[in-house]
Amino acid sequence: MPVTSSAMPASVKIVDVSPRDGLQNEKQLVSVADKVALIHRLQQAGVPNIEAVSFVSPKWVPQMADGLAVMQSVQRKPGVIYSALTPNMRGYESAREAGMDEVVIFGAASEAFSQKNINCSIAESIERFQPVAQAAIADGVRLRASISCCLGCPYEGEISPEKVAEVVDRMVDLGCIEIDIADTIGVGTAGRVKRVYERIFTRHSPQMFSGHFHDTYGQAIANIVAALQCGISIFHGSVAGLGGCPYAQGASGNVATEDIVFLMQGLGIETGIDLTQLAQAGAEISRVLGRPSQSRAGSAWLARQAAQAS
Amino acid sequence: MPVTSSAMPASVKIVDVSPRDGLQNEKQLVSVADKVALIHRLQQAGVPNIEAVSFVSPKWVPQMADGLAVMQSVQRKPGVIYSALTPNMRGYESAREAGMDEVVIFGAASEAFSQKNINCSIAESIERFQPVAQAAIADGVRLRASISCCLGCPYEGEISPEKVAEVVDRMVDLGCIEIDIADTIGVGTAGRVKRVYERIFTRHSPQMFSGHFHDTYGQAIANIVAALQCGISIFHGSVAGLGGCPYAQGASGNVATEDIVFLMQGLGIETGIDLTQLAQAGAEISRVLGRPSQSRAGSAWLARQAAQAS
Repeated sequence: MPVTSSAMPASVKIVDVSPRDGLQNEKQLVSVADKVALIHRLQQAGVPNIEAVSFVSPKWVPQMADGLAVMQSVQRKPGVIYSALTPNMRGYESAREAGMDEVVIFGAASEAFSQKNINCSIAESIERFQPVAQAAIADGVRLRASISCCLGCPYEGEISPEKVAEVVDRMVDLGCIEIDIADTIGVGTAGRVKRVYERIFTRHSPQMFSGHFHDTYGQAIANIVAALQCGISIFHGSVAGLGGCPYAQGASGNVATEDIVFLMQGLGIETGIDLTQLAQAGAEISRVLGRPSQSRAGSAWLARQAAQAS
Repeated sequence: MPVTSSAMPASVKIVDVSPRDGLQNEKQLVSVADKVALIHRLQQAGVPNIEAVSFVSPKWVPQMADGLAVMQSVQRKPGVIYSALTPNMRGYESAREAGMDEVVIFGAASEAFSQKNINCSIAESIERFQPVAQAAIADGVRLRASISCCLGCPYEGEISPEKVAEVVDRMVDLGCIEIDIADTIGVGTAGRVKRVYERIFTRHSPQMFSGHFHDTYGQAIANIVAALQCGISIFHGSVAGLGGCPYAQGASGNVATEDIVFLMQGLGIETGIDLTQLAQAGAEISRVLGRPSQSRAGSAWLARQAAQAS
């Protein structure tokens, strides 16, 4: 009988970000057909929330230029939330045209990162999102916020939990119903993860927060366990570990969704996801990209299935 | 100020198994000079316990045939424990000749694994080690036991915590002062890890146990945190993640020591190890083997140092 700690949730929502965050951080351009196939495999495997596209300027992010075409080709599975990044009203309007269920705005817990990444202060960035937030709420579209550098910053180094909580406050004021606490450079470790969430929970309820952990230093799965122990029940992953870290050349980035699902299986926590089908989705997109899957659990799981079949 | 849970130890002993367990599971033969250089770099980095050699028949394990030559060339650092596997009295005598501080005997928590691996039952294997154990105790040599398949078996599947505890009982009866709880196929997850240790602790004290976790499914660091929370303060790693998993082709095996040290740094737990020097040791042996380091923390750490220097 699997063991779950009394503090841990009975089930979690896994958000797979591979078609957006994953592919955006891969050098290769991937065709609309291959992106749609990836999304189909993910939803078929039971992934309940897919970060599918980003409506940003194709001049800056060519990998994401085909968002509308992708969403028009996807045969949507009822109950699945399809999310899109929307940095401004133009992006929001495209998201509406594409029929997105959820739009994602973003900020950082580090002033330096905000300046370097989007050329303005944290406060300005949040103000710029006001129109998008108001439109989403008025239109009944889910509004999610992603906060970068919550466990550390490539420029500022350490980030205080209070600073993270302040940015959370601003996002909650904007009307966001889900907020991603992101370890953008993967430097977080289990103790610090708990301190950040504990600070946030002095004034907000755990249910609205997710953990978006990068595996750059091999800490993501341990950080997810720490977050579970805090009561977090939403986690981001990228199938096959798609998406390297743009801040450390050659380093790994997003944690592999298969590794998260293997953890949850072991803990007896429901995900609604079939690990074999998920690992096959990871294997297939890796084949398209011409490189091995970065997922340890996915690779080992499929190897074990193959060995048992022979 | 780093956070340590009140249940966690203030310091841990890291045992690096790369020269033995790591290189034994690599296809390539590595020269005596390169093995000695690896051991020198590890001790220089502050690693307090190195599993350096194995005194087994060269017919079966050619990679380990040069154990005596290696130990004769090592310039030993005072205070470091140098360990050798000794499957029988012949191996023990070689270990004495080589001046080893510690000898390692082994068993399994799975009958099927014991049969397939060493062609006898668990009980028989322990009896066969009696002479080695008695000799080590009489000679004042540290006696350690490694127990395989504590979190699962490639043949039997699930292994009960009680079965693990029974094998521990036998090893304690033999006079072992340190006992490695090994997740040989890497299938353990945080909840199960705790259940195994909790079972063992119904009749033994935590201080004598280590965690030897494989990262085949990406769970090792999370398992180490779970073990820390149980009060375990000895952990095995292999620099650069040397040593694949012999039970899942192409899969990762030993957890990378650099990833463990990064975790401990983040938790504020002392290891006595300098991560930069350790990561350099990992980079160098990877260069010798002609492949990239399997350590995420090691690679990212060195990349960050390089970026900061430029």
